[in-house]
Amino acid sequence: MKTAVVALGGNALLRSGQKGTFEEQIANVSETCQALVKLIKQGYTLCIGHGNGPQVGNVMLQHEAGKNTFGLPAMPMDFCVAETQGSIGYLIEMCLQNELHHADIKKDVLTLLTQVRVDADDPAFQKPTKPVGPYYTKEDAERYAAQSGAIFKEDPKGNGWRKVVPSPTPKEIKHVELVKQATREGRIVITVGGGGIPVVENDGLYKGIEAVIDKDLASALLASGIQAESLFILTDVPNVCIRFRKPDELRLEKITVAEAKKYLADGEFAEGSMAPKVRAAIFFLEHGGKECIITEASRLGTDNAGTRIVAD
Amino acid sequence: MKTAVVALGGNALLRSGQKGTFEEQIANVSETCQALVKLIKQGYTLCIGHGNGPQVGNVMLQHEAGKNTFGLPAMPMDFCVAETQGSIGYLIEMCLQNELHHADIKKDVLTLLTQVRVDADDPAFQKPTKPVGPYYTKEDAERYAAQSGAIFKEDPKGNGWRKVVPSPTPKEIKHVELVKQATREGRIVITVGGGGIPVVENDGLYKGIEAVIDKDLASALLASGIQAESLFILTDVPNVCIRFRKPDELRLEKITVAEAKKYLADGEFAEGSMAPKVRAAIFFLEHGGKECIITEASRLGTDNAGTRIVAD
Repeated sequence: MKTAVVALGGNALLRSGQKGTFEEQIANVSETCQALVKLIKQGYTLCIGHGNGPQVGNVMLQHEAGKNTFGLPAMPMDFCVAETQGSIGYLIEMCLQNELHHADIKKDVLTLLTQVRVDADDPAFQKPTKPVGPYYTKEDAERYAAQSGAIFKEDPKGNGWRKVVPSPTPKEIKHVELVKQATREGRIVITVGGGGIPVVENDGLYKGIEAVIDKDLASALLASGIQAESLFILTDVPNVCIRFRKPDELRLEKITVAEAKKYLADGEFAEGSMAPKVRAAIFFLEHGGKECIITEASRLGTDNAGTRIVAD
Repeated sequence: MKTAVVALGGNALLRSGQKGTFEEQIANVSETCQALVKLIKQGYTLCIGHGNGPQVGNVMLQHEAGKNTFGLPAMPMDFCVAETQGSIGYLIEMCLQNELHHADIKKDVLTLLTQVRVDADDPAFQKPTKPVGPYYTKEDAERYAAQSGAIFKEDPKGNGWRKVVPSPTPKEIKHVELVKQATREGRIVITVGGGGIPVVENDGLYKGIEAVIDKDLASALLASGIQAESLFILTDVPNVCIRFRKPDELRLEKITVAEAKKYLADGEFAEGSMAPKVRAAIFFLEHGGKECIITEASRLGTDNAGTRIVAD
């Protein structure tokens, strides 16, 4: 039995240009789950992490609107992340169990709420970098920034402007031993949703903190913790590229950690986009992992899909 | 080792008269968790169900406000219930782990998202009865009813008016075997939040449905499924009473299933309040349970707390 962690990107759930209705999300997630079933047919036992960028952004806007319209208290980000672990976990769990049924495969799929510990003195708290929520025009972003005090930055892919929040390094995933056990028993576990509910520890006591943990890095820590062989990081491009969107763009097929580090240092990968995925791959490969594949969901289960990063 | 399911009422989380800020909810949940620690000290391994009435009502209002303010899609009730399983599960899990730490007890606390299957042809879908969301004045309730088409009814305890939705009978709890296993291993599992995410099955495929499952009945089905000895149903009164709030009110201390059934038939217990709790107790005792205690959280761990219902 091979164990793999699959980190689903936001577009596995909500696509650019969609409003994100329930029906759209069910359709997107079902399509992604059909791709996951291909991996399961190849003999992988899966553990699934997922992003929540657009969703947690929507939840934050709903809280804001609920406060202004009905006087309901707006909740902090850890609470909002927990809400999205519930809703997204539910969609993935239900769609995957239905796709497994279509494929006549009997597997238990379960979703575990997941707190992830970060350090209270992580330097990320001084410098918010993680984009969350919907894309805005520059004018709307400036208006919301003025209203809320939030910081907005332009999306490197040119889709518009998004709010950015601190993204501290995940240090410890709660229940990682239980996830390992359940995976070894053949169960499919959905965990570290949205990178995990960010919590800090003080004298054995835990509390939530306003942040979003990078879901790829949390998935890499998870993959290392459950001793998975492979980490699949799903995104919206088929391969990692160098000289991305330049005339001499090169799709990478197989690279080593040393090569990945060099390209990172050369600034080949955009922050908030490919750079954190490559860093997550490096973390996993330097902590027991055998291979990390970065690709899009539709390529899963095909030969030589995506960019394969391996230890040196 | 004795296993007990504890069904937490909405007021374990959000109290009447409170706005439901994050700080208020943390304080309420911590107090409830201190009571749960008393049961744990008595040797119980716990499995925790909880309500979500006020919370899912708030989520529904936030979705409504988010639609009107930002054009975000409002999601169906199953999705909203899943959101509250995430947020409430997180609060209970974190507060309980902190209270266990204060008590120097090492126990794993985990939260499992839970789908609960109901029958699509359950007669409840013809007749909404379950109150959800905030209490309103009669005037506000009439205004919201006119705006949304929802049905509102007066709270039997005189707190105001609340929206009512269908409440079908829970038929099957997903992952019940896994919960039983985890409980046997000494873990504390938070599950069937809000009575579970309501789903219907057709030809092996599942989908969500707009409903709220009674959390006490879902907790009773859970307690029976994991073969728990005891079911604690927490509410905001110390005992079940007959002739409630009349001059000759009688607090019940110990009754049998037969007596409980007679009082129910006599209309001693209010619908949407004590009646479903007593029905849940009867279900549990007729499906393998030994005792059901209905009381308030602060009485837990004291001798002869609350009303004890036992098999005939």
